[in-house]
Amino acid sequence: MPTNADVMTGLPAIAPVDPAWIARADARQVTLTKPPGSLGRLEQVANRVAAIQQSLTPTVDRAHIIVFAADHGIVAEGVAPYPPDVTRQMVANFLAGGAGVNALARVAGAEVHVVDIGVAGDVPPHARLRQRRVAAGTKNFAREPAMTREQAQAAIDVGLDIGRDVIASGANMIGLGEMGIGNSTAASAVTAALTGLPASAVTGRGTGADDAMLARKMAAIDEAVRRHRLQGAAPFDVLMTVGGFELAGLVGLTLAAAAARTVVVTDGFIATAAVAVAVRLCPHAADYVFAAHRSPEPGHAALLNAIGQEPLLDLGMRLGEGTGAALAFNVIRGAVAAFTDMATFSSAGVSDRSADPTGTGDAGA
Amino acid sequence: MPTNADVMTGLPAIAPVDPAWIARADARQVTLTKPPGSLGRLEQVANRVAAIQQSLTPTVDRAHIIVFAADHGIVAEGVAPYPPDVTRQMVANFLAGGAGVNALARVAGAEVHVVDIGVAGDVPPHARLRQRRVAAGTKNFAREPAMTREQAQAAIDVGLDIGRDVIASGANMIGLGEMGIGNSTAASAVTAALTGLPASAVTGRGTGADDAMLARKMAAIDEAVRRHRLQGAAPFDVLMTVGGFELAGLVGLTLAAAAARTVVVTDGFIATAAVAVAVRLCPHAADYVFAAHRSPEPGHAALLNAIGQEPLLDLGMRLGEGTGAALAFNVIRGAVAAFTDMATFSSAGVSDRSADPTGTGDAGA
Repeated sequence: MPTNADVMTGLPAIAPVDPAWIARADARQVTLTKPPGSLGRLEQVANRVAAIQQSLTPTVDRAHIIVFAADHGIVAEGVAPYPPDVTRQMVANFLAGGAGVNALARVAGAEVHVVDIGVAGDVPPHARLRQRRVAAGTKNFAREPAMTREQAQAAIDVGLDIGRDVIASGANMIGLGEMGIGNSTAASAVTAALTGLPASAVTGRGTGADDAMLARKMAAIDEAVRRHRLQGAAPFDVLMTVGGFELAGLVGLTLAAAAARTVVVTDGFIATAAVAVAVRLCPHAADYVFAAHRSPEPGHAALLNAIGQEPLLDLGMRLGEGTGAALAFNVIRGAVAAFTDMATFSSAGVSDRSADPTGTGDAGA
Repeated sequence: MPTNADVMTGLPAIAPVDPAWIARADARQVTLTKPPGSLGRLEQVANRVAAIQQSLTPTVDRAHIIVFAADHGIVAEGVAPYPPDVTRQMVANFLAGGAGVNALARVAGAEVHVVDIGVAGDVPPHARLRQRRVAAGTKNFAREPAMTREQAQAAIDVGLDIGRDVIASGANMIGLGEMGIGNSTAASAVTAALTGLPASAVTGRGTGADDAMLARKMAAIDEAVRRHRLQGAAPFDVLMTVGGFELAGLVGLTLAAAAARTVVVTDGFIATAAVAVAVRLCPHAADYVFAAHRSPEPGHAALLNAIGQEPLLDLGMRLGEGTGAALAFNVIRGAVAAFTDMATFSSAGVSDRSADPTGTGDAGA
């Protein structure tokens, strides 16, 4: 059985975010022309971005969403309401700019990258498609491990590679996207294994499973966690045994971004499952992650809790693809813009709090 | 005592949003390449924007925030931690582009308009300042009504005027902004009167009142509501007696936008108090309003409930100025972009749900 130790040797070093930088950023917040704390969580977001970039003039103008697409052997168990062909078809839709993530990324001024990391069936070449297929879909984890050890490592490496590449090209905020019919079953299995919760607590309807399908999902997950002894297993083993190539790619991407001190924005349940694996492998990676939103998938809250993040949005979104990340980009940008662009009390000649609030005396400055 | 009947004759006619348009928009949603309902509240937002504009290709690209600034006589009671001069100073800050709303509006690609509707003290002319002062601040409502009937009507008219003007200039999404030292006391008084709740349930610390200040705010509000018999009073009377010029301006602006079938985006507690007055005057106005966010001010949830709106964001923001509206603009734009720009299952050649989810047979289309 592979262990964390095997995979850890290939992982980048990730330093924690320095609390002194958080304090430095917060000291600037109180000089800005607003009552202290009045921008709420935006202030905390900006402070952490400043600490991540080690700068009091952080920038998150160049946002990129990486959508990893892959297929899942577990669909043979009848766990997904859409045919597996949809993974391949949606890759074409992403490349043509017609998917939800494309629409939301345009509003956010973000680039969308599409990576075939494990799609089954024919995907024609395209100028904007990165062809990095590890295999034509995972194996059915109801019968055998989803991936070999080498495949899981290779998929993580794809994510590391692509992360380094987009950061080298100038990305300063990275959104996690994914597409894969069947991947809510994989993500629920990963969540059950990592959190110790039963499938019933962490499994939802994904793209719209009916009652019978949901029962099959839960049964397959509980059985796989039991048979492969995944309760409390090493995160790499969990990923390899019940995960997916797109999840592994997102693990690598998250680690590459954290290692390069780059802001990472989660998406929904699937992407957050990958982040939870990344954080189990390298706990300091959590310092670089912002949770975009909370999905109605029941496992999502448990994962957000596991990575210690409060989501920025809670709008009932459950599409994945990076749509939640795209929507959260402008919240983070707003937080950073207020931090970097607002005038200070002294520069704007605005009176700060006074001991004489009736205004009958000297207001002070 | 003035009555609603007096003011109602000057108000524009507002038609309810047609549910047939909501249904038409929703019929398009299910053709888009996503599982039905998977964009959560974004779908409801887009459907309502489509119904407001009576179009399946709605646009919210031209967003304008109108910041009404005014002073409040109630500050003489020692209810605000900043000196009243700050209202005037912040007007200069808005015009110079250094306030929170300016930073957030830039991220949202929104224009900021500043209106002196009742500031006390000297405000120098500026190319981008609309000088529409009704009076140099309201009277102290702890002693007498904040405004005369004529003043309140004039301030509503300023809002109606400016709303019509920005809409004529092309605005298709309007954010409500305000600035006024002391206006959280006015808004709490309006909220207490409209909702029947005691001051203790709807009064918070505003920009940062300490315990003694908070106690003075609550006492002044309870006393004013009692003395002026505002419990259950007509909304115009409430606005005139304990409101503020910027609140009255926002009432007029909201009604002008609703009458012109234009999306209105609330901001925090103060702006929502104005919307609640507008909705009491013209109930259908609520159909045109999107609640940007929920502030920690205790009265805000009661107001959101009163206007029947669920906020889009909940980030602990309590700055006002239109900052919450600015941040919500891109959520609404994302909702609309997904609705108008996404491919359909048939146009993208993506298989819709299948009766054969294992993919071993014909997937259908």
